[in-house]
Amino acid sequence: MNTTMQKISIEKVKTSKIDQVDFDNLDFGSVFTDHMLVCDYKNGAWETPKIIPYQPISLEPSAKIFHYGQSIFEGMKAYKDTENKIWFFRPLDNHRRLNISAKRMAIPEIPEAFFMEGLKALVKLDEKWIPQKDGSSLYIRPFIFASGKGFHASPADEYKFIICLAPSGSYFSGKVKVLIEEKYSRSANGGVGYAKAGGNYAGQFYPTQLAAQKGYSQVIWTDDNNHEYIEEAGAMNIFVRIGDTLITGPTSDRILDGITRKSILQIAEDEGIPTEVRKITVSEVVEAAKNGSLKEMFGAGTAAVVSPISTFGFRDVDYDLPELAESYATRLKKRITDIQFNRAEDPFGWRYGL
Amino acid sequence: MNTTMQKISIEKVKTSKIDQVDFDNLDFGSVFTDHMLVCDYKNGAWETPKIIPYQPISLEPSAKIFHYGQSIFEGMKAYKDTENKIWFFRPLDNHRRLNISAKRMAIPEIPEAFFMEGLKALVKLDEKWIPQKDGSSLYIRPFIFASGKGFHASPADEYKFIICLAPSGSYFSGKVKVLIEEKYSRSANGGVGYAKAGGNYAGQFYPTQLAAQKGYSQVIWTDDNNHEYIEEAGAMNIFVRIGDTLITGPTSDRILDGITRKSILQIAEDEGIPTEVRKITVSEVVEAAKNGSLKEMFGAGTAAVVSPISTFGFRDVDYDLPELAESYATRLKKRITDIQFNRAEDPFGWRYGL
Ligand SMILES: Cc1ncc(COP(=O)(O)O)c(C=O)c1O
Ligand SMILES: Cc1ncc(COP(=O)(O)O)c(C=O)c1O
Repeated sequence: MNTTMQKISIEKVKTSKIDQVDFDNLDFGSVFTDHMLVCDYKNGAWETPKIIPYQPISLEPSAKIFHYGQSIFEGMKAYKDTENKIWFFRPLDNHRRLNISAKRMAIPEIPEAFFMEGLKALVKLDEKWIPQKDGSSLYIRPFIFASGKGFHASPADEYKFIICLAPSGSYFSGKVKVLIEEKYSRSANGGVGYAKAGGNYAGQFYPTQLAAQKGYSQVIWTDDNNHEYIEEAGAMNIFVRIGDTLITGPTSDRILDGITRKSILQIAEDEGIPTEVRKITVSEVVEAAKNGSLKEMFGAGTAAVVSPISTFGFRDVDYDLPELAESYATRLKKRITDIQFNRAEDPFGWRYGL
Repeated sequence: MNTTMQKISIEKVKTSKIDQVDFDNLDFGSVFTDHMLVCDYKNGAWETPKIIPYQPISLEPSAKIFHYGQSIFEGMKAYKDTENKIWFFRPLDNHRRLNISAKRMAIPEIPEAFFMEGLKALVKLDEKWIPQKDGSSLYIRPFIFASGKGFHASPADEYKFIICLAPSGSYFSGKVKVLIEEKYSRSANGGVGYAKAGGNYAGQFYPTQLAAQKGYSQVIWTDDNNHEYIEEAGAMNIFVRIGDTLITGPTSDRILDGITRKSILQIAEDEGIPTEVRKITVSEVVEAAKNGSLKEMFGAGTAAVVSPISTFGFRDVDYDLPELAESYATRLKKRITDIQFNRAEDPFGWRYGL
């Protein structure tokens, strides 16, 4: 893998479109900044990334992305502190995970320098776009897809690595009601569930629509074999608090190794919260809900940060979670966002200054 | 669903590129004809399809196809008989399956008229591109992908339905050696394996590369639970002949309902070949190979037609299949291609004249 890189070229927009954006009313991921980073893989090597004005991409109709779903992505955020200094959160972990996804999807891995230098140059250039309103952030979307052509079902010979930036409001609006799924599945043993591969997400849309028709905003996936174990949600790992113990499932080849998940686990341990990483059965959660020992459930992910679950549905019964004055979710969310926004010490060394 | 349609508009190329094509040396799916059909889904409806010169597609970087793998496709062929009449093979089944895939991937279904009228108009316009050399054919690729934009992991609001045509040589060159896979899986119970969804294919590339390093050209997938049952190959359903009985696995939510598979089954029954549709265990196939009762294995699919398997590998042992003077594969392949090319009677009503 060629890891040396020439200087990233920058072509700036003539006129910024930032003035057209209402930063007080941002949706999630629907407004994009002035620039994007593009890096092509051709003839067996990644070329030098370049920054260009945000613009459409032109592809052959036979580009493999359209036919064989050969694509991966990451989700990150940039944070601005009160002194206007910019921070990333564990960005090297996103780079590492992108390459784990790349390997599984037969996509050439991207060298660390290309990723990190590209990321930094792009965010620096568009730093005015980082929202400072509470709850908003600059969402960062690095992605790689197969641009090489042909109808043979085999890996492409050309790829594009792109980073786009989207100033965003919060991922969920309102309470999060989830449905524990027993018919459909997200991933297979020996499959690609642990990769941030495009196809993993499209496969969730239909079951999630069915759940939405019943009033749920998210599906909680279970194993595809007996639907016995709680796995994760569409874009969040799941935590359950039974009594005073905070529990999350182990990662596996079916479950994404979330950066928020592992950070929350470490913070909880640091705070003296008893934690367990072990398989969680659906039946123990239902049982705990019935006997009152189920105190909290929440999702954890970059987009959704820490999102408390208000209700879960299982076999046509809804189980409401109590509203606690002092929840783990609130405490852990405050601690992680304080680190992310440089409002508190970072004993773990997770902050990465631009 | 709006099923009435206005007349398809046709914009022809100024100069055909057909003279640049070497029809005697065609790869599979790497040369494309002069025109393509494009149909946009916007504001909740499919617009009238149009035929335009084959050309690149321009998309926003946030188009959901790049991020969430929301895409499906079909694979068909057009055949020309000795009197230059053009035939499709069970095209309505491809349309029906495209809509089954669409539903699972939360993509709006395409009305039959849009699909069939589009297909016919396009193939008629580019009919000179149908190769007439034995073993070659015009491969037809209808596909739909999410062109709507945004980083929210939810279905797109805009889609493109496209048909491209590729005059093609045979899918496999040389003998087909397959590896029975025990670590990786193609699909989950309750997943999307029965859909022709893009992501199902990219997920196979890496395990197939690993198999190729050991000298196998295809992987035979088994169930993701115990890897106990033979399922299918990358783009073919699998048939096994033990003694005189032809066996293929039942379709399920993990296995594509192949049109070649069901046609081969019906032809075999018509020919008086004993057939069974039932789960096939890996161990019975290995056992049959050892005791000599395993006579044949072959794959069946539109691209690969009927492809005899010469060897299968399992747990580091290679099992060679005998070379039979009178194989079912040869007999069934002749019968199905004779029907497709209008060289024989079609008692099943499968041929569809243009
Ligand atoms: C399937 C899935 N699980 C979990 C997560 C959470 O991971 P992270 O905390 O790294 O964002 C994500 C999203 O990012 C995801 O897509
Ligand atoms: C996974 C898979 N199985 C089987 C087949 C064979 O189906 P058909 O005979 O309809 O082409 C295909 C390809 O078309 C396929 O992609």
